[in-house]
Amino acid sequence: MKLLVINPNTTQAMTDAIAEQAHAAAAPGTTIDAVSAPWGPASIEGHAEEALAAAATLEVVARAGDDYDGIALACFGDPGLYGARELSPVPVVGIAEAAMLTACTVAHTFSVVTVIDRVRPMLEDVVRRYGLEGRCASVRGTRLAVLDIERDPEAATRDIIAESRLAISEDGAEAILLGCAGMGSLERAARAELDGVPVIDGVAAAVKMLEGVVGLGLKTSRRAAFQTPGPKEVKGEGSVVEAVQERIGTTVAG
Amino acid sequence: MKLLVINPNTTQAMTDAIAEQAHAAAAPGTTIDAVSAPWGPASIEGHAEEALAAAATLEVVARAGDDYDGIALACFGDPGLYGARELSPVPVVGIAEAAMLTACTVAHTFSVVTVIDRVRPMLEDVVRRYGLEGRCASVRGTRLAVLDIERDPEAATRDIIAESRLAISEDGAEAILLGCAGMGSLERAARAELDGVPVIDGVAAAVKMLEGVVGLGLKTSRRAAFQTPGPKEVKGEGSVVEAVQERIGTTVAG
Amino acid sequence: MKLLVINPNTTQAMTDAIAEQAHAAAAPGTTIDAVSAPWGPASIEGHAEEALAAAATLEVVARAGDDYDGIALACFGDPGLYGARELSPVPVVGIAEAAMLTACTVAHTFSVVTVIDRVRPMLEDVVRRYGLEGRCASVRGTRLAVLDIERDPEAATRDIIAESRLAISEDGAEAILLGCAGMGSLERAARAELDGVPVIDGVAAAVKMLEGVVGLGLKTSRRAAFQTPGPKEVKGEGSVVEAVQERIGTTVAG
Amino acid sequence: MKLLVINPNTTQAMTDAIAEQAHAAAAPGTTIDAVSAPWGPASIEGHAEEALAAAATLEVVARAGDDYDGIALACFGDPGLYGARELSPVPVVGIAEAAMLTACTVAHTFSVVTVIDRVRPMLEDVVRRYGLEGRCASVRGTRLAVLDIERDPEAATRDIIAESRLAISEDGAEAILLGCAGMGSLERAARAELDGVPVIDGVAAAVKMLEGVVGLGLKTSRRAAFQTPGPKEVKGEGSVVEAVQERIGTTVAG
Amino acid sequence: MKLLVINPNTTQAMTDAIAEQAHAAAAPGTTIDAVSAPWGPASIEGHAEEALAAAATLEVVARAGDDYDGIALACFGDPGLYGARELSPVPVVGIAEAAMLTACTVAHTFSVVTVIDRVRPMLEDVVRRYGLEGRCASVRGTRLAVLDIERDPEAATRDIIAESRLAISEDGAEAILLGCAGMGSLERAARAELDGVPVIDGVAAAVKMLEGVVGLGLKTSRRAAFQTPGPKEVKGEGSVVEAVQERIGTTVAG
Amino acid sequence: MKLLVINPNTTQAMTDAIAEQAHAAAAPGTTIDAVSAPWGPASIEGHAEEALAAAATLEVVARAGDDYDGIALACFGDPGLYGARELSPVPVVGIAEAAMLTACTVAHTFSVVTVIDRVRPMLEDVVRRYGLEGRCASVRGTRLAVLDIERDPEAATRDIIAESRLAISEDGAEAILLGCAGMGSLERAARAELDGVPVIDGVAAAVKMLEGVVGLGLKTSRRAAFQTPGPKEVKGEGSVVEAVQERIGTTVAG
Repeated sequence: MKLLVINPNTTQAMTDAIAEQAHAAAAPGTTIDAVSAPWGPASIEGHAEEALAAAATLEVVARAGDDYDGIALACFGDPGLYGARELSPVPVVGIAEAAMLTACTVAHTFSVVTVIDRVRPMLEDVVRRYGLEGRCASVRGTRLAVLDIERDPEAATRDIIAESRLAISEDGAEAILLGCAGMGSLERAARAELDGVPVIDGVAAAVKMLEGVVGLGLKTSRRAAFQTPGPKEVKGEGSVVEAVQERIGTTVAG
Repeated sequence: MKLLVINPNTTQAMTDAIAEQAHAAAAPGTTIDAVSAPWGPASIEGHAEEALAAAATLEVVARAGDDYDGIALACFGDPGLYGARELSPVPVVGIAEAAMLTACTVAHTFSVVTVIDRVRPMLEDVVRRYGLEGRCASVRGTRLAVLDIERDPEAATRDIIAESRLAISEDGAEAILLGCAGMGSLERAARAELDGVPVIDGVAAAVKMLEGVVGLGLKTSRRAAFQTPGPKEVKGEGSVVEAVQERIGTTVAG
Repeated sequence: MKLLVINPNTTQAMTDAIAEQAHAAAAPGTTIDAVSAPWGPASIEGHAEEALAAAATLEVVARAGDDYDGIALACFGDPGLYGARELSPVPVVGIAEAAMLTACTVAHTFSVVTVIDRVRPMLEDVVRRYGLEGRCASVRGTRLAVLDIERDPEAATRDIIAESRLAISEDGAEAILLGCAGMGSLERAARAELDGVPVIDGVAAAVKMLEGVVGLGLKTSRRAAFQTPGPKEVKGEGSVVEAVQERIGTTVAG
Repeated sequence: MKLLVINPNTTQAMTDAIAEQAHAAAAPGTTIDAVSAPWGPASIEGHAEEALAAAATLEVVARAGDDYDGIALACFGDPGLYGARELSPVPVVGIAEAAMLTACTVAHTFSVVTVIDRVRPMLEDVVRRYGLEGRCASVRGTRLAVLDIERDPEAATRDIIAESRLAISEDGAEAILLGCAGMGSLERAARAELDGVPVIDGVAAAVKMLEGVVGLGLKTSRRAAFQTPGPKEVKGEGSVVEAVQERIGTTVAG
Repeated sequence: MKLLVINPNTTQAMTDAIAEQAHAAAAPGTTIDAVSAPWGPASIEGHAEEALAAAATLEVVARAGDDYDGIALACFGDPGLYGARELSPVPVVGIAEAAMLTACTVAHTFSVVTVIDRVRPMLEDVVRRYGLEGRCASVRGTRLAVLDIERDPEAATRDIIAESRLAISEDGAEAILLGCAGMGSLERAARAELDGVPVIDGVAAAVKMLEGVVGLGLKTSRRAAFQTPGPKEVKGEGSVVEAVQERIGTTVAG
Repeated sequence: MKLLVINPNTTQAMTDAIAEQAHAAAAPGTTIDAVSAPWGPASIEGHAEEALAAAATLEVVARAGDDYDGIALACFGDPGLYGARELSPVPVVGIAEAAMLTACTVAHTFSVVTVIDRVRPMLEDVVRRYGLEGRCASVRGTRLAVLDIERDPEAATRDIIAESRLAISEDGAEAILLGCAGMGSLERAARAELDGVPVIDGVAAAVKMLEGVVGLGLKTSRRAAFQTPGPKEVKGEGSVVEAVQERIGTTVAG
């Protein structure tokens, strides 16, 4: 099974960390390619940045075609997920979605512990978009910027564990989701500290979820929300426009 | 008061129709500029197209700066709305949002009657994103593609009215929202036919909503969801990247 | 455009303050009349008082007929709103409703900061009645009685700002609604103190909302919830009975 | 145990029918007085009529003081219920509330079958006000006006049973609530026809609920929503103003 | 009227206390038998114990047949309630259900104060199962094991009252439900301490609820959720298998 | 990886079919044991039968100890799931849960198509218990008894496909879950007929979900809902009592 993991931001060091985490989770027969977004923000910490990252992610998805058996989007807001499902012939999962669904099998409620508090409302919206608000005890921000995690992993680990403890004691969390694709390297330390509480990294969860979905022979439903787009004129000259034009297969006036 | 109305798709004829509808709704002192997205799909009928349109819309918003007192996004999915709130110093409203909030003052429940059924799940998600599912009787699709409306307005009117009648009799709708920015021209006919049931065009509603919000001296909250983005490296060379780079005010490595 | 603003309680000083706030918000062509309830409680701080105020408000609405283009109910519980919609041929908005809907365009979540904690459950019910619980971060009471606000505006301002800060920091509020018709005079001070957080007075919001709704040519839906009452015998001799009798247009046995 | 049953409308024949239904349900030691509202509409089929009836009902409740051990409000919208709880020192239940809570012990879901479709949105709001929307399969209107029931009981019975069958087969109702205080006389026929499906008359249910609550020594909570009103000036000269003035115990300037 | 009260656990001292509480609540003509589960855990403080208790409870219910007019299940998780409704020809109520429904008539919101925090998620699920999450302010655990209550009633009373005060001041509870069948003896003390806040013991509430439901001539709906099981082979030799076999009336291969 | 699949009913032919379906889904390194409940009903079509099956299932889980890496419960009501999580040191998933969570990755909404309509309310409760009502378009019953499926697979297939088509066209389902453990053999035919709509068998989904969860090194959270039970006296002599006694590790007086 060949999986593509897309880091929707443009920081290659983060893509490398994501790739490592994905490889560690993969089953023997699973191979993984990890790529960065071709353009866009170095990290995603707001709605505008997310919108750019979503478009850049769709460019990658459109170009990937059916080269892979499944695709994972490795940013905890799952930017571009629904559009990716439309454009791709193979299953696509987001790491937020994968982490939440996985948590539901080992805990009654989960909390997401994420980067700077600014992204909290975005992730609360993600939880609601998936209809999982009844399972989510809380989304908790920290003082960490996305790119701080690799700069000072020890401080990051301390912050995440401290906030996780509050999620558990104050909010009733029974599992902790690491709310950023770059936090996979903290999983081991967090699990050691938070005894009896599952700690879930979305990148690893997405790999396993894809292995399951692909293994079951499932494809994205084409019935309503995720129909393959019909031919459509897409104007412009940028790389994303080109990629989508090719995929949707329509003639275009630039 | 100067308002900017952005049509997130690239079909100028539709932008012209939107502009006309906006002018008709504007109060004496309100001036309106209407522009198309600089690139992207000719119409928005799916998530992938919406993602491209959102990025293109943000390009316009970023370039607009504070040239206007308020901005309306004229596509019923409100693409890029939250990112636009972050990037713009002035209030931004979407036409779906404006139509729904306005409906709440004249009816207990509303239905959205929109284009091809394919967009129904997207608009149901929009309703949920705004937390208004308790007021929404239904979202109903028709057989109309977005660009069919101007091609054959009479047939479009017949379809919209027929589906509206079903929304009223079957779903308990007390008001009808025209679920596409291009449907404003059908408002008069629909009102005439659907006696006693308010019919709301989002473009007009957005203009009045902006007049109200700007008149009250309100600005977008900077507290949590819609904070102005801090400096951030945005890689790439496309026009949207340039516009956002300028607005966020950061140095960038291409 | 002629608007009628009804203060559902019987304290003329409060009606005067409401009138001032309404005038300040009105567009050039809008004229405003403000009246007190003809009978009933001096302030509304509970369900029994609200029920009396609702009946007294309907008396005013019934007598107003079509003398105005729109009517605003200036008490944050919106007493009698749905009955007023039935009796009046013109649009009617409540200030709670108007404040909440307006907040939705500039913030992801709002809190209501109101008078004595006793009214908190009432206002929580109002939020739910409008289906906006997903947007409401909290309703917070203070130590202020309704009539304290004009007695000691400085103390009132201090209390409201202090509780607003808690709503923002503890509950995640992104906007603050002043939860009493008499609080309009505090708006300026609250905005100055709560930087980046919209502060909304319902009276002003209702005036703008009516200007918008009337400007769009909308009328209250007659489809289900707000049908005009048919002829009905209404017994009794009080002024409210007389007013409703006249409006519903039926013969009555006293 | 002495119970007061208040018919919030002014039709004595309906009060007599309600009294009969209440007596039939009462336990041996329970005595029942039934009274009509002193003024107001002959029947309650809309929000404006309900607002008047609520005020008139509070007049009765205020005058009753502690002459009774419990009070039932016998109109399916439970008009004035929350205000009555504030004003009365004894437990107050509404027949809608009593019917719904009782249904919850014998069925997983219930439907309300009521009079003309015009009241459907009102009763849907009542269900939501009590937080029971998860248990309510539907509210279904018929062609019956309130006062039709006693005029032609056989036709009324046919209509109610026909609509009940639809509630059961189409909406999944497991119990049927008779959605008008005047429908008690149809209970027997409806039970005979709807085999295996509980049919509940709210008047009878309210009597049993009060017997239970009073028997348990419970009083209305004074903690938040239903605090006894403090002294308050209530202006005016009508009978309701006088009654509430006496009960709240304050000096008043007319 | 003859009622059966089943203690789903096997601690006879607790059954005796439950019986006493039930007798105290019963109306003059009501007789009560109270029995322990024939086998299973000494107390119920988790899902596995509850599953065993549910099966043992169904054994009692199946054997009871129509010997009683109604059955109460006296454990606050209402174990086996829905199965009991299927097997029994007479109404069955759980004490959690009865306490919650009763609370709804005297308070806008209630909190459940229960034993060790371990059962909190279970009781939160019970609240949700009955669709009453909108009325429940909180479920609060204490340090008490079920069997601690009778061992040291004074300490138990102190704990319950302390946690109840927090539920009132922190969570907005307007009524307190004693969240364990063994807490009935604390009701008097709790009521004395928590002035103006109803305190409800589920055993007493269930007795009154059954008196009401039976008095109204109601039976469990056979329409959907609680249909009487048809003949079914039930394998095995235990007492529960035998009891259910007899009740379902089928031939069985052991 | 060694997985145990428990059929909670006592029909060995059904256990064999489940085993086959599980083997077909298993990854190369996964071995599977499938066992029937040691006692209880031949099929599970109601709450009473489910309660017995839950106890019998816990007996198997308790005896299994840590002999396996994960356990699947193969009945679409997931009987005993939460108790099994407490008793077992390894992850436990139910097939309803696994099917629903899997569906969420390939479709926006799903419907469950199940056996006789009698179980519909039970499965609706299961959906709610998992907080997934926002994703569930409908639960639809058929005329099939559980044991009819293997008796006449062709008729069963026809029924399931017909009802699935209705779920898709009437309810907006984007994926179909086969709502009974015995329906795995219909998956292939249903997929062939329902083009573009994912069809999911819970047994296969549970195997893949367990492979993922175990592969991620996750264990059931011990924080709140699923704590391992402490020592507890469990009275009685049946096999389930013995098994739980051994597992909870307490001394018992029979």
